[in-house]
Order: sequence, then structure tokens, then C-alpha cells
Amino acid sequence: MSRTVYVNGQYLPEGDAKVSIFDRAFLMADGVYEVTSVLDGKLIDFDGHLARLERSLSELDIQKPDCFDDLLEIHRELVRVNGITDGMVYLQVTRGAAEDRDFVFPDPEEVKPTVVLFTQSKPGLADSPASKKGIKVISIEDIRWGRRDIKTVQLLYPSMGKMMAKKAGADDAWMIEDGHVTEGTSNNAYIVKGDTIITRQLSNDILHGITRAAVLRFAREAQMKVEERHFTIDEAKDADEAFVTSASTFVMPVVQVDEAVLGDGTPGPVSKRLREIYLEESRKAAI
Amino acid sequence: MSRTVYVNGQYLPEGDAKVSIFDRAFLMADGVYEVTSVLDGKLIDFDGHLARLERSLSELDIQKPDCFDDLLEIHRELVRVNGITDGMVYLQVTRGAAEDRDFVFPDPEEVKPTVVLFTQSKPGLADSPASKKGIKVISIEDIRWGRRDIKTVQLLYPSMGKMMAKKAGADDAWMIEDGHVTEGTSNNAYIVKGDTIITRQLSNDILHGITRAAVLRFAREAQMKVEERHFTIDEAKDADEAFVTSASTFVMPVVQVDEAVLGDGTPGPVSKRLREIYLEESRKAAI
Repeated sequence: MSRTVYVNGQYLPEGDAKVSIFDRAFLMADGVYEVTSVLDGKLIDFDGHLARLERSLSELDIQKPDCFDDLLEIHRELVRVNGITDGMVYLQVTRGAAEDRDFVFPDPEEVKPTVVLFTQSKPGLADSPASKKGIKVISIEDIRWGRRDIKTVQLLYPSMGKMMAKKAGADDAWMIEDGHVTEGTSNNAYIVKGDTIITRQLSNDILHGITRAAVLRFAREAQMKVEERHFTIDEAKDADEAFVTSASTFVMPVVQVDEAVLGDGTPGPVSKRLREIYLEESRKAAI
Repeated sequence: MSRTVYVNGQYLPEGDAKVSIFDRAFLMADGVYEVTSVLDGKLIDFDGHLARLERSLSELDIQKPDCFDDLLEIHRELVRVNGITDGMVYLQVTRGAAEDRDFVFPDPEEVKPTVVLFTQSKPGLADSPASKKGIKVISIEDIRWGRRDIKTVQLLYPSMGKMMAKKAGADDAWMIEDGHVTEGTSNNAYIVKGDTIITRQLSNDILHGITRAAVLRFAREAQMKVEERHFTIDEAKDADEAFVTSASTFVMPVVQVDEAVLGDGTPGPVSKRLREIYLEESRKAAI
């Protein structure tokens, strides 16, 4: 069945959902995005995603779209018309389609942002087989641009990284800069040593994960020890456990880093416990 | 008057020229491009641009579009129907529009590349006032990704750099990495010391400019000294002359780098001579 998607104020069948070839996201990767998960038909961490969207737009001097205050309603309408029980809502805002291609930003009085949203149905999202088995990651060099804190659509290298992982028989890649892990291709990275959860501190080097913030809060509330600091790929290979967090995978255990199998090769107790807590608390707070 | 543009086999009025919201260039910056100049209705360095396009596609494992061998004809048809005497033809190839958003590349058997071309009319392109006065550049940090030799549409930072230059009252920005100039926002950078032309050596750090290759060949043929090596921003500020090269600006003199005025603040003799040679030879070889 064809999805109904949202493009600049209109609800359309996905086959009719198009943007101008002059859209700056198409020509220059000049756009930002968010992905919000849906569980039991409700949105997870919506306010966090909206706040980060506002920050991304502000960092790039892209004006807030006129529909900004309606975004919750648009998300809900798409979930409703597409009958999504579990899945995601993808939202992208671009600087818009200027009259012609130009490195200079178009006049914001004349060119309004493009707003696109669509759903992805993923029945059983919170019960994926991967979450029970854990995933394998490989390490690759991090050659992305320097402002990874802004959630732009410049995803070519993360996409290439996912392909490198696939070719190596793994599920995902962790990116390494100066010997330290920055993050996964579309998630934040964590290791567990003894009773301590270690994840890279926030900076321009990584995305400020909405799920990351929630998981660290829940971990601290559960009296777990959290260290926000750089860690090396060698530390990761020598860790007791590892996991990643993202809006669409929640807390996903990692059981292998390159050739190193972690623990007994199955999801560790801290990862499992955090996943349970995150899903339980998120479902309660879902809107 | 509305331009006629080319989208996936069709010649369309620009207002009807659209791509799917699922196009991977729109969602993930997964596309490459070329810009070919037109002088007197003829294409400059077309073969060079086509060869580089083929390399960019190959580096990213994007299949060659079916129309690849027709690209010359498509360029010429667009020049003809839009009555372009002087200007540019922009060409973009993306990995195509998959059925859904996914970091994993779509099956090339099922998803074909998107091909878009459009013209930009620039009467008097070879006689621009800027080329007579020279341009001012500022220096900014180079925070782009590590594969700048592939001509991808990940142009957000170059676009931001152009805006930083504009706000500083300058025309363009030179990007600095580890104290050395990489290139301009959309051009290769050169300085002249005494009788020697200095420009950064080819690597993954810079675009392998088609105009760069031609200009260096002409310079050597004219018995000028050429050094391909790193140079610092301080060397640039202390240079006798500077210039940039690109498909759309040819050889463009630079008369100021940050606060440093070069020479007497007007285009230097080497820059002017190289511009003359390049335009003369390119017009002769245009097709």
C-alpha cells in the first residue's frame, strides 16, 4: 500500500512526493533531519527531537518553517493515516528551492524552507532479533566534516560505512578519529568496564543523541556509574560490554568489535537492563 | 523566460523539474556533479569533466547512467534550446531514488541513477568585472570531509564559507588545514612568488580541478615555473600574486588575502597572462 507523506503543507501519495531539482538539499546537502520512533502508535522523545531540530536550523541560519508549531500534529496525522503501530517518522527541513543554484544562501524572505515528512512501518521494532543477539561492529576511519553536532543530511560517508560493515559481514561501523571512537554510523557508542558505562563527551565531534541523553539520565537514576570521556578502539575491544543508542534502535547491544568478541558473545547485563529501562520509561512518556 | 532542463531522459520546463523525496541526493547527499563552461555557445574542457564524472561515480560505486554516452549531446541540446552564448551547464548524477530511506545502498539492478542537467546563462562570463579588479579572500578553517577529490554534492560547508566571506566584505574564502591552504570554496588556490607558481599537490585533500590541469599545462608550455606543494596562509599573505581557477571563473586574480593586500592590489602579470592563455586555448579547443 502506498504511504501518505507530507511535503510543504500537502499530504500526498508517496509516488507524487517530489521536490524541485533546485532544492538546496538536493544540490548542496543544505538540510537537516530528525527521526522519531513510534511505539504502540505513540511518539517517543518527540520534544527532544523538536528541540534538536530547532538547534540544527539555528546553527545553519535556516529559518524555522511556518509549520514548526504544527509538527507534532503532522507527525500524529501521518502515524494515523498510515496505520503505524511501531516504526519511525522521518522529518527533513531544507533551506528551500532557490531560483537558481548558488553557493550564496537565498534571501529568506523569498525562499521558504522545504519540509518533508514520511513514516516507516517497522512492526515489532522494540523486539528486533538483533536486540536479542547483539550486533557486530567494525572500526573505520572517521573522515566526516567537523560539525557532526548538527544533524545535516550529509550522510554519504555514514552510508559508505554501513556498506563497509556489510561487506565485512558486520552490522555497523564505529568511526575512529585520532585513535578514539567518535560514534557509530547512525548511533552513539558506549562501552562498559566493570560497573562503569563509558561514552564520549559531547562536542562538535558527535551528534548530541536524544536517546543518549535519556539513557544516561536513566542510568544515573538507576545508580549506575557513567563516565563521559574519549575511549580508544583498543579499550572497546577489551571491554566487558558495549552498546549503541539511537532513536530507532533504542539501546542495542554490541557483542563484537572488529575481531574481538566481548564477554561471552551475547548481550551483557548492563546493556540489557538499560534497554529495558529505556523502553519502559519511553513508552510511559510517549505522546 | 523559463529554462528547459533535463531530468532522467526528459526535457522539461524548470518549474516541472522535480525529483522524488526519496532521491538519495536529497536524503543523504549521495550524488556527484560537474559544471562545464560555455563560451560562444561551445563547451569548454568537456572531456575532462566527463572523465572526472566517471571517476567520481566509480569511487562511490554509483553505476554509470544509461545516458552516459549521450551526455555531450544533452549538453549541446540544452545550450541550443536555452540560447546560451556564455554560461554554464550543471550536471548531477545521484544513486537514485530507492523505495525507502536506508543507509544501505539500494540494489543497482532495481534503482537507477538520477540524472539532472540545467544551464545558467552568464553573458560576458569571460569578461567579468571581477576578473579585471581581482577578488578578496578570507581564510577559514577547512572542516570538510576527507574525500574532497570526489566531486560530491556535500557543499554545505563551502556554501557557509561563501557566506562568511560575504559577511566579511570579501568575495571568497580559502580553507586552511594544519596551517596550509587546501583550496577555495569552489576553486583551486595558487600563489606566485617571483617567477614561480605554487599550488597544492593533488591528493584526497583537494578537488582535482579540470581547469587546474589545463592551466598548469599551459603554464609549463609557456616556460613558467610550477611547484606543486603545500603552502601556508602566511606564505599566501606574503606572495607577489595569487589567483584561483575553476570551470566557471577560469583564472581569477586574487588581490587580497585576509588583511594583506598583494602587490599593488591589482591583478598581477602572471595571473593576467595565464587567464589570457587559458581563455585563448580553451576557446580554440571548445566543442
